Amino acid sequence: MFKVTFAFEDGSVTETYANTGDNLLEIAREANVAIDAPCSGNGACGKCRVQLKNGELETKKTLHISDEEFEEGWRLACMSKIIADVEVLVPDIASAYKSRMKVADLSSREEIAIFENAKREIELAGIELKNSLDVVEVRMEEPTLDDTMPDIERLSRALRKFMNLKRVRIPYTVLRKLPDVLRNSKFSVKCVLRTTPDDMFVYDIFDSREDVVIGGLAVDIGTTTVSAVLINMETGEILAKSSAGNGQIRYGADVINRIIEAAKPGGQKKLQDAVIKETINPMIHEMCKSIGFPKDRIYRMCVASNTTMNHLFAGINADYLRMEPYIPAFFKTNSLFSSDVGIDINQDAHIIIAPNIGSYVGGDITAGTLVSMIWNRPEFSLFIDLGTNGELVFGNSDFMMSCACSAGPAFEGGDISCGMRATDGAIEACTIDKDTMEPTYTVVGDPGTKPVGLCGSGIIDVISELFMAGIINPKGKFVREGKRVRHDQYGMGSYIIAFEEEAGTTKDVEITEVDIDNFIRAKGAIFSAIRTMLSSLDFDVSMIDDVYVAGGIGSGINMRNAVNIGMFPDIPLEKFHYIGNSSLTGAYLMLLSTPAEQKTYKLASNMTYLELSAVPTYMDEFVGACFIPHTDASMFPSVQQK
Amino acid sequence: MFKVTFAFEDGSVTETYANTGDNLLEIAREANVAIDAPCSGNGACGKCRVQLKNGELETKKTLHISDEEFEEGWRLACMSKIIADVEVLVPDIASAYKSRMKVADLSSREEIAIFENAKREIELAGIELKNSLDVVEVRMEEPTLDDTMPDIERLSRALRKFMNLKRVRIPYTVLRKLPDVLRNSKFSVKCVLRTTPDDMFVYDIFDSREDVVIGGLAVDIGTTTVSAVLINMETGEILAKSSAGNGQIRYGADVINRIIEAAKPGGQKKLQDAVIKETINPMIHEMCKSIGFPKDRIYRMCVASNTTMNHLFAGINADYLRMEPYIPAFFKTNSLFSSDVGIDINQDAHIIIAPNIGSYVGGDITAGTLVSMIWNRPEFSLFIDLGTNGELVFGNSDFMMSCACSAGPAFEGGDISCGMRATDGAIEACTIDKDTMEPTYTVVGDPGTKPVGLCGSGIIDVISELFMAGIINPKGKFVREGKRVRHDQYGMGSYIIAFEEEAGTTKDVEITEVDIDNFIRAKGAIFSAIRTMLSSLDFDVSMIDDVYVAGGIGSGINMRNAVNIGMFPDIPLEKFHYIGNSSLTGAYLMLLSTPAEQKTYKLASNMTYLELSAVPTYMDEFVGACFIPHTDASMFPSVQQK
Repeated sequence: MFKVTFAFEDGSVTETYANTGDNLLEIAREANVAIDAPCSGNGACGKCRVQLKNGELETKKTLHISDEEFEEGWRLACMSKIIADVEVLVPDIASAYKSRMKVADLSSREEIAIFENAKREIELAGIELKNSLDVVEVRMEEPTLDDTMPDIERLSRALRKFMNLKRVRIPYTVLRKLPDVLRNSKFSVKCVLRTTPDDMFVYDIFDSREDVVIGGLAVDIGTTTVSAVLINMETGEILAKSSAGNGQIRYGADVINRIIEAAKPGGQKKLQDAVIKETINPMIHEMCKSIGFPKDRIYRMCVASNTTMNHLFAGINADYLRMEPYIPAFFKTNSLFSSDVGIDINQDAHIIIAPNIGSYVGGDITAGTLVSMIWNRPEFSLFIDLGTNGELVFGNSDFMMSCACSAGPAFEGGDISCGMRATDGAIEACTIDKDTMEPTYTVVGDPGTKPVGLCGSGIIDVISELFMAGIINPKGKFVREGKRVRHDQYGMGSYIIAFEEEAGTTKDVEITEVDIDNFIRAKGAIFSAIRTMLSSLDFDVSMIDDVYVAGGIGSGINMRNAVNIGMFPDIPLEKFHYIGNSSLTGAYLMLLSTPAEQKTYKLASNMTYLELSAVPTYMDEFVGACFIPHTDASMFPSVQQK
Repeated sequence: MFKVTFAFEDGSVTETYANTGDNLLEIAREANVAIDAPCSGNGACGKCRVQLKNGELETKKTLHISDEEFEEGWRLACMSKIIADVEVLVPDIASAYKSRMKVADLSSREEIAIFENAKREIELAGIELKNSLDVVEVRMEEPTLDDTMPDIERLSRALRKFMNLKRVRIPYTVLRKLPDVLRNSKFSVKCVLRTTPDDMFVYDIFDSREDVVIGGLAVDIGTTTVSAVLINMETGEILAKSSAGNGQIRYGADVINRIIEAAKPGGQKKLQDAVIKETINPMIHEMCKSIGFPKDRIYRMCVASNTTMNHLFAGINADYLRMEPYIPAFFKTNSLFSSDVGIDINQDAHIIIAPNIGSYVGGDITAGTLVSMIWNRPEFSLFIDLGTNGELVFGNSDFMMSCACSAGPAFEGGDISCGMRATDGAIEACTIDKDTMEPTYTVVGDPGTKPVGLCGSGIIDVISELFMAGIINPKGKFVREGKRVRHDQYGMGSYIIAFEEEAGTTKDVEITEVDIDNFIRAKGAIFSAIRTMLSSLDFDVSMIDDVYVAGGIGSGINMRNAVNIGMFPDIPLEKFHYIGNSSLTGAYLMLLSTPAEQKTYKLASNMTYLELSAVPTYMDEFVGACFIPHTDASMFPSVQQK
């Protein structure tokens, strides 16, 4: 056995042991060290770089590491085998994906404005903000020798009288505490109930003198980031908010690699543990701790996520999602409980799932569609969710069509050498001076935070600015020289946004022609998807009344720049609306409002799905869109003009 | 820490460690060594005798141990403290209560005849032998690119079509295996379903090529003995049968002492573990092993037991059962699952409980009443269950009244110096020659098994024979002398049934005047209860058409002898019927037949309860019955005649 030490830039280390020949990336995964490996460890992506500090590794060389870098100790973890004690540095660019949890400060109005707004809109649409959970106070006669009804019957009768309903279900958890709570409270209690047309379920029972808040948990499980809110189910108030990296990230950056990992022996359990035990449960714990809320008073949970994520969350074989004919195990569930999957809230809590509509359009999109309100207007709107993939919904109150395009993870920093998610150190906005070519940027985090990489919104800005300044041409190749433009031994150009000295990492923060090319393909996928879907309906982009853009790609998107690079159609900017993480907001609405939940199921079942790859013109559209802004520049008159 | 060694007569030992001053009985309980302590360890009953073999104990002397016995090393465990390493012998008379599990040989027709008979009778009464569980075979279209319905929806639709019902509930356990089972079976499956008027619950799913037997488990939890049958829910066939001592025995012989133990810190869990983890789960395991049946294919369980036993089984505070106004937490449950209490069968299996009708008349009696069929006849019948207590039901198809009498555990060998339950070594029948005063007895167990003690049926025989031979008088005092009659230093007489040399234990198997006195009070309680209940209804014993006697007090009861001693009224012997363990048979019927289950709930809710202690004449009746056969001998003309 050899000792393997993973050192991080913040000075912390993780130590573990391994045998001769063990794969370093596998060792890192077992030790819960997050090393990004979008390709799932086959040497293709070049993301899993670590730097050898002490000891030895047996590493297969690949093109991803230059001779100079190899000399400096850089290795791909997936190509390295253990042959001795070893210490490697895991660079921040990788650990930016680490499960850094953040509990939001709700004193900032911004954090909750989006939920308040969504509530208001849904109510305006005539959907009541009412769910099936209630706290009711019940007072019973104390038993005597002449009135010897058993406790459960006494409570059931009192509740039936109160609620005028037939059947009361009292689960074991309540039965167990019933005799003592009744007597300690002198038969005056508060019950947490769920009332449905069929029956009444008693979640909990308390002395009536206690203050009881019914907690609910809405969670957006993104492929990259998990976000959650803990809410008061009666008022809808956001009690706490948290986000963290999805712990599954070490099993691959995209859903396909996750599915492949899950299909390995024990994989389903590992992937489920990574998202539940390592990600969501700690978030619940932190949120509850921050406000002193008992975890077992969270009685309902709603999950919104793409189809793969909700299958892996539920610990269900997701392999069939990626194999023809691409069949999910479920669209929604009616019998999933927290205790089934080990979510650390009340053990009888139901977990509802925002409905999937297929293998590639999941609950994140249906929940987001609910929030977009496009189903409530006669005007034609486009909803775009930029997650680790891109999904679109187009329609109005009469019809809706959805599609998914394999944009890849570029919007969340994947496939980009210095890409990262929108967390501390990410450049989220940037301008470049046309003359000096010098950049000005803003970085996520406290003032003074040094740049570590680029998140989605930053990449859009940088590419747009490079193009508008004539530094790159429509093909994304560098055509101007300067101190920030560099060419490597193969002639590949790059632009340095922050030199190593200014950066919060050990190398320059730059964007390369390869990155730009990857991003152009990503934005091309989005734009061609929009065009293809609209064409299939005999629509033209000019007929779009509103565009709702969602996704956690930064604090927002510079829509002008997104149009400049040909990602979004060239329509008046005021038609674009950034609606934030609509998946989380949608989960919140489904949790808070049973009619909203029902509405989402209905939206999902009425939505048609367009399989883009089955449309013959899609490939042509895509190839045309793989330019800045487009091979047919006339589609972008406002850009042409500039 | 001192080493404490418990040695058993079979040569086995259990070793543990204890601190100075620790109580030996407590140490034994912690080490799962079964030492009978009906008084729960306060020195009152004298049952917890152990023999000091090596080392030392600090023991408080009580009257229960004579000077001679003390000299021989006999000590009461509850009065002994650890002060050094010690080894004690735990005599068989105590370990007879040990959790000796037995899986019955079903090739013997007797073992199943009682169930067959009960099925026949219930069917004759027009109650259908049909439950809500079914195996159905379902064949689905395989999905294609044009038919991309998710698995859960595909199955639900197929089932809805098949069963013509609205709502299908598919729990997590099934959802998890669904994708693989569907594909491995080419979408041709067998489902185990529970169908109710409201919905359909899918317990399990299998490849249609598999043979699937739906298992069910009926358990009678007696205070002393636990019995169970594993059945085929479709045919009612008994697949396996098992019995074992209730592991709770070491916490006291009767329900009151168990409740007191359960009220101590951690006690609820200990008592629940003793009956579930140490008793029922091993029985399930052994039964399943004996026939190669998978435990998780047991989808439903029915428990019949007295009110204290079902509360302790469910891990629910039973303290209120013994405190005025004596209120149970429940009569029956509709939401108890195997996973709630850790019963080792399918985790979604419902556990139903034969309904209690009060703190002192429980589900064992309502289940037994179902089996007795007294509710189905115009004639007036009496149902008597002789368990660790005595309960009676009297009535016919128009009305039923129940009562409980504190007969104590004498019928199961409790409160009797050589008493034991009807297991190997128990004398279950006996005659005594009037002239020679020599006994002839039969012993439970393989031929040649030596007698260890007396079980209930044996005690009835011995006392009746002693009385009829004029060896004891109506007060139970010895009035003849002989080699088998002995008097101790205080003049207390006893009759030796088996001398130490003939016995399978280290002392004589005898019956003392104290034992006889205890038993007379027990039988007096039964007889006076019968009289009191009948009087309250203006009935006389002569108006009883049939008497159904149930209980595990031996292979049967010699009714003649039971009448001789004045336990049962002096009516024609052909009116008496021994119906065995009717609690288990009732649980079996409730499990197998939903109408029988419903019928039992109805019987329970229609049954009135007579609190004997509230009837002014009961005490007089009891005092009068504390003679052999009775102070008013004219009540027993047939006995008088002899």
